[in-house]
Amino acid sequence: MTQRLEQQIAFLNEADKLKQIMRGTTLCDGSRAENSAEHSWHLTLYALVLADQAGPEVDITRVIKMLILHDLVEIDAGDNPIFGDYDAKAMEAAEQIAADRIFGLLPNDLRDDLRAIWEEFEAAQSPSARFAKSLDRFQPPMQNLMSGGGSWTDYNVSEEMVAQKVGSKIAIGAPALWEFARAKIAAFFATIPKA
Amino acid sequence: MTQRLEQQIAFLNEADKLKQIMRGTTLCDGSRAENSAEHSWHLTLYALVLADQAGPEVDITRVIKMLILHDLVEIDAGDNPIFGDYDAKAMEAAEQIAADRIFGLLPNDLRDDLRAIWEEFEAAQSPSARFAKSLDRFQPPMQNLMSGGGSWTDYNVSEEMVAQKVGSKIAIGAPALWEFARAKIAAFFATIPKA
Repeated sequence: MTQRLEQQIAFLNEADKLKQIMRGTTLCDGSRAENSAEHSWHLTLYALVLADQAGPEVDITRVIKMLILHDLVEIDAGDNPIFGDYDAKAMEAAEQIAADRIFGLLPNDLRDDLRAIWEEFEAAQSPSARFAKSLDRFQPPMQNLMSGGGSWTDYNVSEEMVAQKVGSKIAIGAPALWEFARAKIAAFFATIPKA
Repeated sequence: MTQRLEQQIAFLNEADKLKQIMRGTTLCDGSRAENSAEHSWHLTLYALVLADQAGPEVDITRVIKMLILHDLVEIDAGDNPIFGDYDAKAMEAAEQIAADRIFGLLPNDLRDDLRAIWEEFEAAQSPSARFAKSLDRFQPPMQNLMSGGGSWTDYNVSEEMVAQKVGSKIAIGAPALWEFARAKIAAFFATIPKA
Protein backbone atom coordinates (compact mmCIF):
# COMPACT_ATOMS: atom_id res chain seq x y z
CA MET A 1 0.00 0.00 0.00
CA THR A 2 2.71 2.50 0.98
CA GLN A 3 4.71 1.45 -2.07
CA ARG A 4 1.68 2.14 -4.25
CA LEU A 5 1.18 5.57 -2.67
CA GLU A 6 4.89 6.35 -3.10
CA GLN A 7 4.52 5.74 -6.83
CA GLN A 8 1.33 7.83 -7.06
CA ILE A 9 2.99 10.75 -5.26
CA ALA A 10 6.17 10.46 -7.35
CA PHE A 11 4.00 10.86 -10.46
CA LEU A 12 2.11 13.83 -8.96
CA ASN A 13 5.37 15.51 -7.96
CA GLU A 14 6.78 15.00 -11.45
CA ALA A 15 3.60 16.48 -12.96
CA ASP A 16 4.35 19.71 -11.08
CA LYS A 17 6.92 20.45 -13.82
CA LEU A 18 4.11 21.15 -16.30
CA LYS A 19 3.74 24.51 -14.49
CA GLN A 20 7.08 25.52 -16.02
CA ILE A 21 6.33 24.60 -19.64
CA MET A 22 5.58 27.88 -21.41
CA ARG A 23 3.22 28.16 -24.39
CA GLY A 24 3.07 30.49 -27.39
CA THR A 25 -0.20 31.99 -26.13
CA THR A 26 -0.35 34.68 -23.45
CA LEU A 27 -2.84 35.35 -20.67
CA CYS A 28 -5.88 37.44 -21.72
CA ASP A 29 -4.18 40.64 -20.53
CA GLY A 30 -1.01 39.85 -22.52
CA SER A 31 1.16 40.24 -19.41
CA ARG A 32 3.02 36.96 -19.77
CA ALA A 33 3.03 33.61 -21.57
CA GLU A 34 0.58 30.99 -20.35
CA ASN A 35 2.00 27.74 -18.97
CA SER A 36 0.67 24.32 -19.88
CA ALA A 37 -0.66 23.50 -16.39
CA GLU A 38 -2.89 26.57 -16.14
CA HIS A 39 -3.88 26.08 -19.80
CA SER A 40 -4.97 22.53 -18.93
CA TRP A 41 -7.06 23.81 -16.03
CA HIS A 42 -8.66 26.45 -18.23
CA LEU A 43 -9.60 23.79 -20.78
CA THR A 44 -11.33 21.65 -18.15
CA LEU A 45 -13.41 24.73 -17.34
CA TYR A 46 -14.13 25.20 -21.06
CA ALA A 47 -15.42 21.63 -21.11
CA LEU A 48 -17.70 22.22 -18.10
CA VAL A 49 -19.07 25.48 -19.50
CA LEU A 50 -19.32 24.49 -23.19
CA ALA A 51 -20.66 20.96 -22.70
CA ASP A 52 -23.79 22.04 -24.59
CA GLN A 53 -21.62 22.28 -27.72
CA ALA A 54 -20.75 18.57 -27.59
CA GLY A 55 -22.56 16.04 -29.77
CA PRO A 56 -24.70 13.31 -28.18
CA GLU A 57 -21.92 10.70 -28.38
CA VAL A 58 -19.49 12.80 -26.36
CA ASP A 59 -18.76 11.72 -22.76
CA ILE A 60 -17.92 15.01 -21.00
CA THR A 61 -16.29 13.26 -18.04
CA ARG A 62 -13.95 11.48 -20.46
CA VAL A 63 -13.27 14.83 -22.20
CA ILE A 64 -12.31 16.41 -18.87
CA LYS A 65 -9.97 13.53 -18.03
CA MET A 66 -8.32 13.88 -21.45
CA LEU A 67 -7.83 17.61 -20.92
CA ILE A 68 -6.29 17.08 -17.47
CA LEU A 69 -3.74 14.69 -18.98
CA HIS A 70 -3.29 15.95 -22.55
CA ASP A 71 -0.14 18.06 -22.11
CA LEU A 72 1.78 16.02 -19.50
CA VAL A 73 4.17 14.68 -22.14
CA GLU A 74 5.37 18.26 -22.70
CA ILE A 75 7.38 17.92 -19.47
CA ASP A 76 9.90 15.99 -21.58
CA ALA A 77 8.90 16.82 -25.16
CA GLY A 78 8.16 20.56 -24.78
CA ASP A 79 5.35 22.61 -26.29
CA ASN A 80 5.24 23.18 -30.04
CA PRO A 81 3.37 26.42 -30.86
CA ILE A 82 0.91 25.68 -33.65
CA PHE A 83 2.25 28.43 -35.91
CA GLY A 84 5.89 27.51 -35.23
CA ASP A 85 8.08 25.23 -37.35
CA TYR A 86 8.33 21.68 -36.13
CA ASP A 87 8.63 18.13 -37.44
CA ALA A 88 5.32 16.42 -36.59
CA LYS A 89 6.77 12.88 -36.86
CA ALA A 90 9.70 13.69 -34.58
CA MET A 91 7.36 15.37 -32.10
CA GLU A 92 5.08 12.35 -32.01
CA ALA A 93 8.04 10.05 -31.38
CA ALA A 94 9.32 12.29 -28.58
CA GLU A 95 5.87 12.36 -26.99
CA GLN A 96 5.63 8.58 -27.01
CA ILE A 97 8.97 8.32 -25.22
CA ALA A 98 7.80 10.96 -22.75
CA ALA A 99 4.55 9.07 -22.13
CA ASP A 100 6.53 5.86 -21.46
CA ARG A 101 8.59 7.61 -18.81
CA ILE A 102 5.96 9.82 -17.16
CA PHE A 103 2.98 7.43 -17.03
CA GLY A 104 5.54 4.72 -16.19
CA LEU A 105 6.02 6.32 -12.77
CA LEU A 106 2.53 5.10 -11.80
CA PRO A 107 1.44 1.68 -10.50
CA ASN A 108 0.72 -0.51 -13.55
CA ASP A 109 -3.09 -0.38 -13.40
CA LEU A 110 -3.14 3.42 -13.22
CA ARG A 111 -0.37 3.69 -15.81
CA ASP A 112 -2.49 1.70 -18.27
CA ASP A 113 -5.74 3.57 -17.50
CA LEU A 114 -4.30 7.06 -17.82
CA ARG A 115 -2.13 6.20 -20.82
CA ALA A 116 -5.24 4.89 -22.60
CA ILE A 117 -7.06 8.18 -21.98
CA TRP A 118 -4.09 10.13 -23.36
CA GLU A 119 -3.75 7.82 -26.39
CA GLU A 120 -7.47 8.25 -27.14
CA PHE A 121 -6.99 12.03 -27.10
CA GLU A 122 -3.93 11.84 -29.34
CA ALA A 123 -5.66 9.58 -31.87
CA ALA A 124 -8.49 12.15 -32.21
CA GLN A 125 -10.89 9.51 -33.52
CA SER A 126 -13.56 9.07 -30.82
CA PRO A 127 -16.30 11.73 -30.49
CA SER A 128 -14.97 12.63 -27.02
CA ALA A 129 -11.40 13.04 -28.29
CA ARG A 130 -12.57 15.17 -31.21
CA PHE A 131 -14.47 17.49 -28.89
CA ALA A 132 -11.50 17.70 -26.50
CA LYS A 133 -9.18 18.55 -29.42
CA SER A 134 -11.60 21.23 -30.61
CA LEU A 135 -11.56 22.91 -27.20
CA ASP A 136 -7.76 22.75 -27.17
CA ARG A 137 -7.76 24.66 -30.50
CA PHE A 138 -10.55 27.05 -29.52
CA GLN A 139 -9.08 28.48 -26.31
CA PRO A 140 -5.92 30.10 -27.83
CA PRO A 141 -7.86 32.30 -30.31
CA MET A 142 -10.12 33.41 -27.45
CA GLN A 143 -6.97 34.45 -25.53
CA ASN A 144 -5.48 36.15 -28.62
CA LEU A 145 -8.67 38.15 -29.19
CA MET A 146 -8.50 39.38 -25.59
CA SER A 147 -4.79 40.25 -25.68
CA GLY A 148 -4.95 42.07 -29.01
CA GLY A 149 -3.23 39.53 -31.22
CA GLY A 150 -0.96 37.42 -29.02
CA SER A 151 0.58 34.51 -30.91
CA TRP A 152 -0.93 35.70 -34.23
CA THR A 153 1.15 38.87 -34.00
CA ASP A 154 4.23 37.05 -32.65
CA TYR A 155 4.19 34.54 -35.52
CA ASN A 156 2.96 37.05 -38.17
CA VAL A 157 -0.06 34.93 -38.95
CA SER A 158 -2.82 35.87 -41.44
CA GLU A 159 -6.55 35.34 -41.04
CA GLU A 160 -6.33 32.61 -43.69
CA MET A 161 -3.64 30.76 -41.73
CA VAL A 162 -5.76 30.86 -38.57
CA ALA A 163 -8.69 29.42 -40.50
CA GLN A 164 -6.53 26.73 -42.07
CA LYS A 165 -4.46 25.63 -39.07
CA VAL A 166 -6.91 26.24 -36.24
CA GLY A 167 -10.39 26.74 -37.61
CA SER A 168 -10.46 23.51 -39.57
CA LYS A 169 -9.64 21.60 -36.38
CA ILE A 170 -12.13 23.41 -34.15
CA ALA A 171 -14.83 22.71 -36.75
CA ILE A 172 -14.32 18.93 -36.58
CA GLY A 173 -15.56 18.58 -33.00
CA ALA A 174 -17.38 21.85 -32.34
CA PRO A 175 -18.64 23.50 -35.55
CA ALA A 176 -20.71 26.18 -33.80
CA LEU A 177 -17.66 27.27 -31.81
CA TRP A 178 -15.74 27.76 -35.04
CA GLU A 179 -18.59 29.83 -36.52
CA PHE A 180 -18.53 31.98 -33.38
CA ALA A 181 -14.74 32.35 -33.42
CA ARG A 182 -14.55 32.98 -37.17
CA ALA A 183 -16.72 36.08 -36.99
CA LYS A 184 -14.65 37.52 -34.14
CA ILE A 185 -11.37 36.66 -35.86
CA ALA A 186 -12.54 38.34 -39.09
CA ALA A 187 -13.47 41.47 -37.15
CA PHE A 188 -10.05 41.45 -35.46
CA PHE A 189 -8.06 41.05 -38.69
CA ALA A 190 -10.14 43.80 -40.35
CA THR A 191 -8.47 46.20 -37.88
CA ILE A 192 -4.93 45.10 -38.84
CA PRO A 193 -3.29 46.81 -41.88
CA LYS A 194 -2.34 44.22 -44.56
CA ALA A 195 1.42 43.80 -45.02
CA MET B 1 -27.63 31.12 -29.20
CA THR B 2 -24.92 33.70 -29.90
CA GLN B 3 -26.01 35.63 -26.79
CA ARG B 4 -25.60 32.44 -24.73
CA LEU B 5 -22.14 31.80 -26.18
CA GLU B 6 -21.14 35.41 -25.52
CA GLN B 7 -21.98 34.89 -21.84
CA GLN B 8 -20.13 31.57 -21.69
CA ILE B 9 -17.01 33.11 -23.24
CA ALA B 10 -17.21 36.19 -21.00
CA PHE B 11 -17.10 33.85 -18.00
CA LEU B 12 -14.20 31.83 -19.44
CA ASN B 13 -12.25 35.03 -20.18
CA GLU B 14 -12.87 36.29 -16.66
CA ALA B 15 -11.68 32.94 -15.26
CA ASP B 16 -8.30 33.57 -16.92
CA LYS B 17 -7.55 35.94 -14.01
CA LEU B 18 -7.17 32.96 -11.66
CA LYS B 19 -3.74 32.46 -13.30
CA GLN B 20 -2.62 35.64 -11.55
CA ILE B 21 -3.77 34.78 -8.03
CA MET B 22 -0.65 33.70 -6.14
CA ARG B 23 -0.68 31.19 -3.28
CA GLY B 24 1.46 30.73 -0.19
CA THR B 25 2.82 27.44 -1.54
CA THR B 26 5.66 27.23 -4.08
CA LEU B 27 6.29 24.85 -6.95
CA CYS B 28 8.10 21.64 -5.97
CA ASP B 29 11.48 23.16 -6.91
CA GLY B 30 10.80 26.25 -4.79
CA SER B 31 11.50 28.55 -7.75
CA ARG B 32 8.33 30.60 -7.46
CA ALA B 33 4.89 30.76 -5.83
CA GLU B 34 2.19 28.58 -7.31
CA ASN B 35 -0.88 30.28 -8.77
CA SER B 36 -4.44 29.14 -8.11
CA ALA B 37 -5.15 28.04 -11.70
CA GLU B 38 -2.23 25.62 -11.92
CA HIS B 39 -2.97 24.49 -8.34
CA SER B 40 -6.54 23.69 -9.45
CA TRP B 41 -5.24 21.67 -12.40
CA HIS B 42 -2.83 19.79 -10.14
CA LEU B 43 -5.69 18.90 -7.78
CA THR B 44 -7.78 17.45 -10.62
CA LEU B 45 -4.80 15.21 -11.38
CA TYR B 46 -4.59 14.27 -7.68
CA ALA B 47 -8.25 13.22 -7.88
CA LEU B 48 -7.63 11.06 -10.97
CA VAL B 49 -4.54 9.41 -9.48
CA LEU B 50 -5.74 9.04 -5.88
CA ALA B 51 -9.33 7.97 -6.60
CA ASP B 52 -8.56 4.68 -4.84
CA GLN B 53 -8.35 6.67 -1.57
CA ALA B 54 -11.99 7.78 -1.85
CA GLY B 55 -14.75 6.06 0.09
CA PRO B 56 -17.53 4.18 -1.73
CA GLU B 57 -19.95 7.14 -1.53
CA VAL B 58 -17.57 9.52 -3.31
CA ASP B 59 -18.40 10.48 -6.92
CA ILE B 60 -14.98 11.20 -8.45
CA THR B 61 -16.46 13.07 -11.41
CA ARG B 62 -18.20 15.41 -8.97
CA VAL B 63 -14.93 15.77 -7.03
CA ILE B 64 -13.10 16.79 -10.21
CA LYS B 65 -15.78 19.36 -11.06
CA MET B 66 -15.50 20.83 -7.55
CA LEU B 67 -11.72 21.07 -7.86
CA ILE B 68 -11.96 22.82 -11.26
CA LEU B 69 -14.26 25.44 -9.72
CA HIS B 70 -13.16 25.62 -6.10
CA ASP B 71 -10.84 28.65 -6.25
CA LEU B 72 -12.61 30.83 -8.85
CA VAL B 73 -13.92 33.18 -6.13
CA GLU B 74 -10.30 34.08 -5.34
CA ILE B 75 -10.34 36.28 -8.47
CA ASP B 76 -12.21 38.81 -6.33
CA ALA B 77 -11.63 37.57 -2.77
CA GLY B 78 -7.93 36.61 -2.99
CA ASP B 79 -6.17 33.58 -1.55
CA ASN B 80 -5.79 33.23 2.21
CA PRO B 81 -2.75 31.13 3.10
CA ILE B 82 -3.80 28.58 5.68
CA PHE B 83 -1.08 29.62 8.15
CA GLY B 84 -1.73 33.34 7.64
CA ASP B 85 -3.98 35.57 9.76
CA TYR B 86 -7.43 36.11 8.37
CA ASP B 87 -11.01 36.61 9.51
CA ALA B 88 -12.89 33.47 8.43
CA LYS B 89 -16.32 35.13 8.59
CA ALA B 90 -15.21 38.12 6.51
CA MET B 91 -13.56 35.81 3.99
CA GLU B 92 -16.72 33.74 3.63
CA ALA B 93 -18.79 36.88 3.05
CA ALA B 94 -16.31 38.15 0.43
CA GLU B 95 -16.39 34.78 -1.32
CA GLN B 96 -20.19 34.80 -1.52
CA ILE B 97 -20.13 38.24 -3.15
CA ALA B 98 -17.42 37.01 -5.54
CA ALA B 99 -19.49 33.94 -6.41
CA ASP B 100 -22.52 36.15 -7.15
CA ARG B 101 -20.51 38.23 -9.59
CA ILE B 102 -18.39 35.54 -11.26
CA PHE B 103 -20.95 32.73 -11.67
CA GLY B 104 -23.44 35.50 -12.51
CA LEU B 105 -21.62 36.05 -15.82
CA LEU B 106 -23.02 32.71 -17.03
CA PRO B 107 -26.43 31.92 -18.54
CA ASN B 108 -28.83 31.20 -15.65
CA ASP B 109 -28.93 27.41 -16.02
CA LEU B 110 -25.15 27.10 -16.01
CA ARG B 111 -24.82 29.71 -13.25
CA ASP B 112 -27.07 27.61 -11.03
CA ASP B 113 -25.39 24.29 -11.87
CA LEU B 114 -21.83 25.47 -11.29
CA ARG B 115 -22.72 27.54 -8.23
CA ALA B 116 -24.33 24.45 -6.69
CA ILE B 117 -21.13 22.45 -7.24
CA TRP B 118 -19.06 25.20 -5.61
CA GLU B 119 -21.50 25.53 -2.69
CA GLU B 120 -21.36 21.77 -2.11
CA PHE B 121 -17.55 21.99 -1.94
CA GLU B 122 -17.67 24.94 0.45
CA ALA B 123 -20.19 23.23 2.75
CA ALA B 124 -17.82 20.22 3.09
CA GLN B 125 -20.67 17.94 4.14
CA SER B 126 -21.15 15.46 1.28
CA PRO B 127 -18.66 12.57 0.94
CA SER B 128 -17.49 14.00 -2.41
CA ALA B 129 -16.92 17.46 -0.94
CA ARG B 130 -15.02 16.00 2.03
CA PHE B 131 -12.72 14.06 -0.27
CA ALA B 132 -12.18 17.14 -2.50
CA LYS B 133 -11.33 19.24 0.58
CA SER B 134 -8.90 16.59 1.78
CA LEU B 135 -7.04 16.68 -1.54
CA ASP B 136 -6.93 20.49 -1.37
CA ARG B 137 -5.21 20.18 2.03
CA PHE B 138 -2.97 17.27 1.03
CA GLN B 139 -1.27 18.82 -2.01
CA PRO B 140 0.47 21.77 -0.24
CA PRO B 141 2.39 19.57 2.23
CA MET B 142 3.51 17.38 -0.68
CA GLN B 143 4.86 20.54 -2.38
CA ASN B 144 6.48 21.75 0.87
CA LEU B 145 8.23 18.42 1.37
CA MET B 146 9.67 18.69 -2.15
CA SER B 147 10.77 22.31 -1.81
CA GLY B 148 12.41 21.86 1.60
CA GLY B 149 9.84 23.62 3.77
CA GLY B 150 8.01 26.15 1.59
CA SER B 151 5.11 27.78 3.40
CA TRP B 152 6.03 26.03 6.70
CA THR B 153 9.33 27.90 6.72
CA ASP B 154 7.79 31.17 5.46
CA TYR B 155 5.13 31.16 8.19
CA ASN B 156 7.41 29.63 10.88
CA VAL B 157 5.06 26.71 11.41
CA SER B 158 5.68 23.78 13.79
CA GLU B 159 4.94 20.12 13.17
CA GLU B 160 2.09 20.37 15.67
CA MET B 161 0.52 23.28 13.78
CA VAL B 162 0.66 21.33 10.52
CA ALA B 163 -1.08 18.41 12.22
CA GLN B 164 -3.71 20.68 13.76
CA LYS B 165 -4.50 22.97 10.82
CA VAL B 166 -3.90 20.62 7.90
CA GLY B 167 -3.70 17.04 9.11
CA SER B 168 -7.04 17.10 10.90
CA LYS B 169 -8.72 18.21 7.65
CA ILE B 170 -6.95 15.71 5.40
CA ALA B 171 -7.96 12.95 7.82
CA ILE B 172 -11.69 13.73 7.46
CA GLY B 173 -11.92 12.69 3.82
CA ALA B 174 -8.75 10.70 3.23
CA PRO B 175 -7.36 9.16 6.44
CA ALA B 176 -4.73 7.00 4.73
CA LEU B 177 -3.34 10.07 2.95
CA TRP B 178 -2.88 11.79 6.30
CA GLU B 179 -1.10 8.72 7.72
CA PHE B 180 1.21 8.79 4.71
CA ALA B 181 1.82 12.54 4.97
CA ARG B 182 2.27 12.50 8.75
CA ALA B 183 5.22 10.13 8.61
CA LYS B 184 6.95 12.24 5.96
CA ILE B 185 6.21 15.49 7.81
CA ALA B 186 7.63 14.05 11.04
CA ALA B 187 10.80 13.00 9.22
CA PHE B 188 11.09 16.49 7.72
CA PHE B 189 10.64 18.34 11.03
CA ALA B 190 13.16 16.00 12.70
CA THR B 191 15.81 17.61 10.48
CA ILE B 192 14.87 21.19 11.57
CA PRO B 193 16.49 22.55 14.76
CA LYS B 194 13.83 23.53 17.33
CA ALA B 195 13.63 27.28 17.97
